Amino acid sequence: MAKIADIYFKVDPWKIVEKGFDPAYARVSESVFSLANETMGVRGSFDEGGSVDSLRGFYVNGVYDIENLNKSYRGIVDHTHFMIPAADWLRTQITLDGEKLDLGKVSFRDFERTLDMREGTLTRSFVWKTASGKEVRLTFLRFLDMIRRERAYQRITLEALNFTGEIALSCGLSFDTLHEGYKKCFWTDTRTETKPGKIEMQSRTTLSGQEVYAAVALGEAGESADACGEKTADINMTLLLRQGQARHIDKKAVLLFNGKTGEALWSDGAAALAETQRVSLDDALKAQREYWDAWWATSDIQIEASDGEDMEAVAAEQQGIRFCSFQLAQTYNGGSKRHNIGAKGMTGEAYNGHAFWDTESCCLPFYLFTNPQAARDLLLFRYNTLPRALERAGMLDCKGACYPIATLNGEEGCALWQHASLQLQPSTAVAYGIWHYVHLTRDEAFLWEYGAEMLLQIARFLFSRAAKSGKSGKYGFYGVMGPDEFHMMVNNNAYTNYMGKRSLAYAAETLIRMRALKPEAFAALSEKTALLPEEIAAWQDMADNMYIPCGENGLIEQHDGYFDLPHTEISEIPVSEFPLYEHWSYDRIYRTDMIKQPDVLMILYLYNSSFSEEVKRTNYDFYQPRTIHESSLSPAIHSILAAEIGNMDDAVRFFGYATRLDLDNYNRNTREGLHITSIAMAWANIVYGFAGLRGDTQTLRFAPRLPARWKKLGFSVLYRARVIRIDMETAGTFFRLVKGEALPVDVYGKNYTLTDELFVPAI
Amino acid sequence: MAKIADIYFKVDPWKIVEKGFDPAYARVSESVFSLANETMGVRGSFDEGGSVDSLRGFYVNGVYDIENLNKSYRGIVDHTHFMIPAADWLRTQITLDGEKLDLGKVSFRDFERTLDMREGTLTRSFVWKTASGKEVRLTFLRFLDMIRRERAYQRITLEALNFTGEIALSCGLSFDTLHEGYKKCFWTDTRTETKPGKIEMQSRTTLSGQEVYAAVALGEAGESADACGEKTADINMTLLLRQGQARHIDKKAVLLFNGKTGEALWSDGAAALAETQRVSLDDALKAQREYWDAWWATSDIQIEASDGEDMEAVAAEQQGIRFCSFQLAQTYNGGSKRHNIGAKGMTGEAYNGHAFWDTESCCLPFYLFTNPQAARDLLLFRYNTLPRALERAGMLDCKGACYPIATLNGEEGCALWQHASLQLQPSTAVAYGIWHYVHLTRDEAFLWEYGAEMLLQIARFLFSRAAKSGKSGKYGFYGVMGPDEFHMMVNNNAYTNYMGKRSLAYAAETLIRMRALKPEAFAALSEKTALLPEEIAAWQDMADNMYIPCGENGLIEQHDGYFDLPHTEISEIPVSEFPLYEHWSYDRIYRTDMIKQPDVLMILYLYNSSFSEEVKRTNYDFYQPRTIHESSLSPAIHSILAAEIGNMDDAVRFFGYATRLDLDNYNRNTREGLHITSIAMAWANIVYGFAGLRGDTQTLRFAPRLPARWKKLGFSVLYRARVIRIDMETAGTFFRLVKGEALPVDVYGKNYTLTDELFVPAI
Repeated sequence: MAKIADIYFKVDPWKIVEKGFDPAYARVSESVFSLANETMGVRGSFDEGGSVDSLRGFYVNGVYDIENLNKSYRGIVDHTHFMIPAADWLRTQITLDGEKLDLGKVSFRDFERTLDMREGTLTRSFVWKTASGKEVRLTFLRFLDMIRRERAYQRITLEALNFTGEIALSCGLSFDTLHEGYKKCFWTDTRTETKPGKIEMQSRTTLSGQEVYAAVALGEAGESADACGEKTADINMTLLLRQGQARHIDKKAVLLFNGKTGEALWSDGAAALAETQRVSLDDALKAQREYWDAWWATSDIQIEASDGEDMEAVAAEQQGIRFCSFQLAQTYNGGSKRHNIGAKGMTGEAYNGHAFWDTESCCLPFYLFTNPQAARDLLLFRYNTLPRALERAGMLDCKGACYPIATLNGEEGCALWQHASLQLQPSTAVAYGIWHYVHLTRDEAFLWEYGAEMLLQIARFLFSRAAKSGKSGKYGFYGVMGPDEFHMMVNNNAYTNYMGKRSLAYAAETLIRMRALKPEAFAALSEKTALLPEEIAAWQDMADNMYIPCGENGLIEQHDGYFDLPHTEISEIPVSEFPLYEHWSYDRIYRTDMIKQPDVLMILYLYNSSFSEEVKRTNYDFYQPRTIHESSLSPAIHSILAAEIGNMDDAVRFFGYATRLDLDNYNRNTREGLHITSIAMAWANIVYGFAGLRGDTQTLRFAPRLPARWKKLGFSVLYRARVIRIDMETAGTFFRLVKGEALPVDVYGKNYTLTDELFVPAI
Repeated sequence: MAKIADIYFKVDPWKIVEKGFDPAYARVSESVFSLANETMGVRGSFDEGGSVDSLRGFYVNGVYDIENLNKSYRGIVDHTHFMIPAADWLRTQITLDGEKLDLGKVSFRDFERTLDMREGTLTRSFVWKTASGKEVRLTFLRFLDMIRRERAYQRITLEALNFTGEIALSCGLSFDTLHEGYKKCFWTDTRTETKPGKIEMQSRTTLSGQEVYAAVALGEAGESADACGEKTADINMTLLLRQGQARHIDKKAVLLFNGKTGEALWSDGAAALAETQRVSLDDALKAQREYWDAWWATSDIQIEASDGEDMEAVAAEQQGIRFCSFQLAQTYNGGSKRHNIGAKGMTGEAYNGHAFWDTESCCLPFYLFTNPQAARDLLLFRYNTLPRALERAGMLDCKGACYPIATLNGEEGCALWQHASLQLQPSTAVAYGIWHYVHLTRDEAFLWEYGAEMLLQIARFLFSRAAKSGKSGKYGFYGVMGPDEFHMMVNNNAYTNYMGKRSLAYAAETLIRMRALKPEAFAALSEKTALLPEEIAAWQDMADNMYIPCGENGLIEQHDGYFDLPHTEISEIPVSEFPLYEHWSYDRIYRTDMIKQPDVLMILYLYNSSFSEEVKRTNYDFYQPRTIHESSLSPAIHSILAAEIGNMDDAVRFFGYATRLDLDNYNRNTREGLHITSIAMAWANIVYGFAGLRGDTQTLRFAPRLPARWKKLGFSVLYRARVIRIDMETAGTFFRLVKGEALPVDVYGKNYTLTDELFVPAI
């Protein structure tokens, strides 16, 4: 990999720290310092705005607007939807001696910004020195309530260092932030009401017609609250600062998006605001710390450097792992079945807030082993959007349900037909996700109530999309784009065929079991979906006769003709040509054996126990040197498989990238937002890679392989109402059940029973 | 073929006649009644406009505007250009007793519209009966001057049938016609000047900044000439009609587009108008008749039905053939090296006026054998746009010259990357066209002055775009779309590889000959293009080692993996699903062995003598049943090859389609304009197909095969300063040199010498 770290932030076990402010990193910092609570998100934008380069981002999960596209061919979307910035509840203006605070223009020192992952707060402080010589220390604190998720808090602390006098402060709220790509504000018909110390607004998106209520309330009243513009309002006040005495202003915000509109929403919003006003910021912060304490207790991963190793580097890894876990938990932690996990979460506008198949393929393991309820809720998002997937299959002249490659609301939002029409992996990933969830949790109620129907419609789609080779008579998928997006319109992509085969077989098996075990539910489902008995048999037949292009040596051909392709020596591509999509002619990317991200290897990762170690080694050794990792989820998959085949050099080499992907801006695009779904792979990299956890057989398997640079690696996993604590040390791995009944496990291929007593299996 | 004739027009040997007016066919008629003179074109739109469904079209060749597109990936165009409607010089309004003439609203009878192909005129007449009971016979005549191509004429004849009284007539000019697709007028800053009986205007396109001068002048002055709107002006008059006495108004128009702007253009325009005013419409019409007489004398194809055959059907074929020849000669007949042949000529806005590779592959034979100077001029268009092709190759990360798939001005105008970036056939077609022209005409001066440079840059492009298979070590083109546009991103497309091979070899051969024969010109070219000697050797090597996927049985695989594709039984596709692009999901079209148009068979057509009859039969029999003919040029190629392999049933079955493609609206889209480049294949269908003409060996070959339904087929061809007359009759084929020196020819594989004496070779 030609990609290298761009180191800017300070290393600290629990904090991300920026000391001094470098304007060149303004947007990177803004992304890294993002906060979210699943319901809303905010980039690390300066409260006071100003002329510093910024993507000012305040998002409410599920809020989007629509663009109508030119009519094109059938099956190509004619409109798309995209996350838009919502209410700016941090809006602040400060003026001293006629000088307006703007870090792009004024003099300041001692700048420090800190994201504290133990309490989910962002703090920024600096000393502002005016042209008139006055010095004020300003500290801005913000956090989003993890429990009452419509609530957000801001505290501005002001301390005059060398004078006593007045300072003008204006605390506001606005719906005027422009979407950066469209250079447009999508909010319309804004209702604004101000009362002393309080601003309430409600606004509507232009085409999607969604409404959001937003309000801010201060502890103090201020001198005036004027609707300054159509979509902005501010509470203006003059504060007397006494030298050496800090004073603060607390601002509480409510952002409510509950599907209601008009007066109904306004009234819910006003009630929520009144409730919020009754809680002090300090009490909210205390509850916040407790929330995160509890979360880290079961979800934290700890590592320690071996003696003689680079302590700082391992400390950076520790920090990186925590950052990944923290961001993922902030973005999605379950509760809502209306939301999924956007590729960039709520940290930027790139990818339009859309969720991809990354959710099921990359993020789900994290939730399955730390928060199974959230995993269930993510699958319910797919169930709730099943009607849209049925429509989409129809647009593609297919039957059943085709899940979208990119979506916020279940509709296909991807305007690039080559992705939207050729990538079947969202649908097979949903089938895989259902299997994975039910297999690990034994939540069969979910399967009968929701899973079976999705599986049925996915199988229908796959069956209608597959075809028979004119020569071999085997089934396959033609004209597809597999996970390796550098090859499109290929035939018999191994991943697509294999996942199709397994999805069809699982659907058939599930429905046959359902018919036997839950005859009434089966009858109801059959009636609802007009299921014919011969369909199940046909799916099974297709699964049995699906073409999997695997030679005798176990080397799987990525797709028909892949082995004939011209070779690209990827080590010879200059770093300056990354990302290739920006530097290479679009079609040039598609013409050689260069692979964007794991495709054959992805099969071996997902259906791990179905392949021998030898097959994994053969395919890893063949495909790894051909992979350019232009997807950020690629290195972790490689690291996990490398660890499994005992290639610890590669395992360590590919590790770290995901862990500090955004902290060290490896892809040079962190400015656009965080790679939320990719950093999910940081967790998997450690737990699947170095601890060798596998959940795809009947017994949970472990095969710990501690990298030499670490002397300790510790973490917990949740599994069937148990908490399993694993501490890998140089001397061996310590297993202990922290909670729950005794559990048989497989460690290094041998069976043990886990209890609440520590045990160290033999290697 | 599921496509069937939709018969509307009357059959006549030299005319296209519409008797009565069916509003449902309004746009089809408007296309069929198009006139052009290479410099301008006009659809058969009603002079008086009105509420009848219409695509009002007045085009000036080479006039376009530009649309800036969203920035996408590298190599995907960021702007496109498209032909726009120019000045409406037929603008007319007629009012009688307060009733405005509008054939969508008024009562009328005896409607007849006639395109006379012997003089290039369009006449429309009908009797208008007002609500007040008055009857007027109106006759509208129009033609475009084939010699002074900036001139156009309109004559309106009025005859009061049952009254004597006044009628109001308004003759105008405007620049306000909307582009139908964009629903926008692209003309701006219009200067308008009116004098008694005369209107002059000059206007500018919005983004391309082109300027057009337009003017109309009447024989009479009229009462007023008011600039009615920003872009319109009318000369209003009241005419006294005496019962039973016809009177007419002649309007002469000038449309000037000569690259000049402002005052310089205006002054040229005014001079051209003054000159035009000195000529009477009757004199101009006389000259027009003489022009077409001379043209038909060498370019006409005559057929006669055999006794007992369907005389009417053959008469329809005769009419169809003439219509094709006429439209092609109208659209392009040489003289301008700035223009090419748009897929729809100047008969509609579909395809944006763009020329495709059809010019070299389909239209060139017609010109090579009827008007070689025009063929040369078409190739000079490619030479003049070579700088754009060099730029385009650079956008694609390639070297040399990549010719555009769709263009008016030499720039790539196709916004669909899958066509613009993957189709290499425009470039290989230019190389083929140069070879074809030089081979037939022996115009080596052209080769040294223009051809060699184009060949050099095309070879460079092909060399940089090709790659070596990772397995076979052979060269090929990866990620392409061949002529069969139903398969994209394929590897080793037989057509692309074969045409690439021949183009590279011809470029190398030409430059080696040039080095020997024209050392100074070669040195100059080498310096201009920084040619390295090893480049020529490398092209030859690539040509020698190009992979051509041909099995021992001579069956050529269309591209890697084609034989493995699922089969579509094309006879089972319901007629209602055509055109497939409108009815099938876009990606569905690309997944089976169904072929849009000849691909392998196109090789056999273009490089005819390089393949045995056996290979042609094998490939024809294999590919023909898999071809759906969604390109209108497809049936003629099949007919020609079928005739060659002696499959006269197929030859006759596929014939006729091209001949009456638009007259009978086979593709159900004639409303959008005529398929100008496809109807070029009607000529080839007869001359190559039934007369068996082949020009790709040293000696001209003929192999006449008269279909049983015809007792006579006669035509002439121009060849190396000779006119050869061929009359195929049931008894045998009569050959005679009408002009020029004795010529050796090959008929049915035997050598003869053609002289001015009739001779009938033995079969």
